Amino acid sequence: MQIIDGKLVASQVLEEVKGDIDRLKAAGITPGLAVVLVGDDPASQVYVNSKVKKCGELGMHSRKIVLPADASQEELLEVIRELNADASIHGILVQSPPPPHIDEAAVVLEIDPAKDVDGFHPENVAKLVMEDESGFVPCTPLGCIRLLKAAGIETAGANAVVIGRSMIVGKPMAHLLMSKQSNATVTVAHSRTKNLPELCRSADIIVAAIGRPSFVTAEFVKDGAVVIDVGINRVEDASAKRGYRIVGDVAYDEVAPRCRAITPVPGGVGPMTIAMLMANTVKACRQQTGA
Amino acid sequence: MQIIDGKLVASQVLEEVKGDIDRLKAAGITPGLAVVLVGDDPASQVYVNSKVKKCGELGMHSRKIVLPADASQEELLEVIRELNADASIHGILVQSPPPPHIDEAAVVLEIDPAKDVDGFHPENVAKLVMEDESGFVPCTPLGCIRLLKAAGIETAGANAVVIGRSMIVGKPMAHLLMSKQSNATVTVAHSRTKNLPELCRSADIIVAAIGRPSFVTAEFVKDGAVVIDVGINRVEDASAKRGYRIVGDVAYDEVAPRCRAITPVPGGVGPMTIAMLMANTVKACRQQTGA
Repeated sequence: MQIIDGKLVASQVLEEVKGDIDRLKAAGITPGLAVVLVGDDPASQVYVNSKVKKCGELGMHSRKIVLPADASQEELLEVIRELNADASIHGILVQSPPPPHIDEAAVVLEIDPAKDVDGFHPENVAKLVMEDESGFVPCTPLGCIRLLKAAGIETAGANAVVIGRSMIVGKPMAHLLMSKQSNATVTVAHSRTKNLPELCRSADIIVAAIGRPSFVTAEFVKDGAVVIDVGINRVEDASAKRGYRIVGDVAYDEVAPRCRAITPVPGGVGPMTIAMLMANTVKACRQQTGA
Repeated sequence: MQIIDGKLVASQVLEEVKGDIDRLKAAGITPGLAVVLVGDDPASQVYVNSKVKKCGELGMHSRKIVLPADASQEELLEVIRELNADASIHGILVQSPPPPHIDEAAVVLEIDPAKDVDGFHPENVAKLVMEDESGFVPCTPLGCIRLLKAAGIETAGANAVVIGRSMIVGKPMAHLLMSKQSNATVTVAHSRTKNLPELCRSADIIVAAIGRPSFVTAEFVKDGAVVIDVGINRVEDASAKRGYRIVGDVAYDEVAPRCRAITPVPGGVGPMTIAMLMANTVKACRQQTGA
């Protein structure tokens, strides 16, 4: 059984990205990422700060823009428009979730698709479906594909079950797997799926993106399957320093022994997301500068 | 075993559409469809003429624009731009396939998404994936969903296998079936899928969109399955008047006895496509006029 080391693969991606950034900088171009946060949600602050920090480590330019929790939709849109026009910024993301009075879909629409490094703009959604590689793919599923490659997993002809049909993970993951690049036979399962354990037992590759702790148990997994766990769930744990610990959507201890390969949580998909964000930003920079 | 009568369901759709058109006309609005044909391919001429004729029967305005086979890309784009600006035209389609020197993707991009009644523009592709019902869905998969509804087939929780991953049928069909409207568990199979007959035998609903005559045989189909045959294939037949006959992707004679319900070819999905085109054009007219 192979534990797919997301930290290691992420560090390899970041090394490649660093090489790209160095070459761009040698040509007088510094990739730049803008991260917009509305409000003061602590978890969002952590995410935003880690993205900004990673930019710094890679020698990338970054801007962190924090708006108060009561900022209006129009104020936020004005910030986006300014960033769209800022030639030093090649990638823009608005940390999710924004406060409830913000129309997130309208915000995404305002981002220049060429700078939409989260891959949430409809133009990038369509490019993924149409297998147009000039678009941006959401970072988490992109990271999952990279993990499969790094682990030497053959996707062509494999039966893959993606549990979850969100726009952030499930649907883009399904498209990446069914594309002519991957050629997997993909099933998208969700809350209304019947006999999910049985269905999953037919899978060579399971991607769990449900958001329920330890949902995928041993009975979901056939011997020799590959399991990618996208879940990041907090569960109370009095013995932990913070009073909680992070677990995935997969009951790791009982599932892992059956697997050919599995991603742990933490240290699996998680570190890949930020690495792919950096990769997407460099891609955006190259496209915008022609470098 | 129920033979799903596409002619009948199409006539019901067209009756509804006719009622909508009559109400729009009573309010001084006539829906209009423009059909653009490049070249003189006989099959394309038949399709274009039947669309124009159907508009006439429904009291809809139509424009048929035929460009010579050697028309340039720019000439075609200029025609589209003129139609985009024509307030009497609410739907635009360019008959596929155009001659090989035409960049079809660029042509689709030029069509105003609000008039893209074929549902091929990236903006409409994204809306389908994002389950935004203001968009246009390609007519053939839309017709398949309507046939399932008309036949009383429950899709929620059903296992559906879509064979084919094209942008015109397979992918949009998969999204329609996996949407929160339909809630099916969807598998997309294709040329690289292994053990396709076995996979299909797990399906409650099979949608065959491969383009290979009689490809789906009895061994693909479990007892009580529902089979939707999207194929329209010409096979040589010396006994037929034209020297050929039209068959689907399903070996009907051997498959039908196993089915709970099946669409025949011809007379199944075929008649639905043009009916849904008319429905899409009325939808476009309503959206553009606010009526």
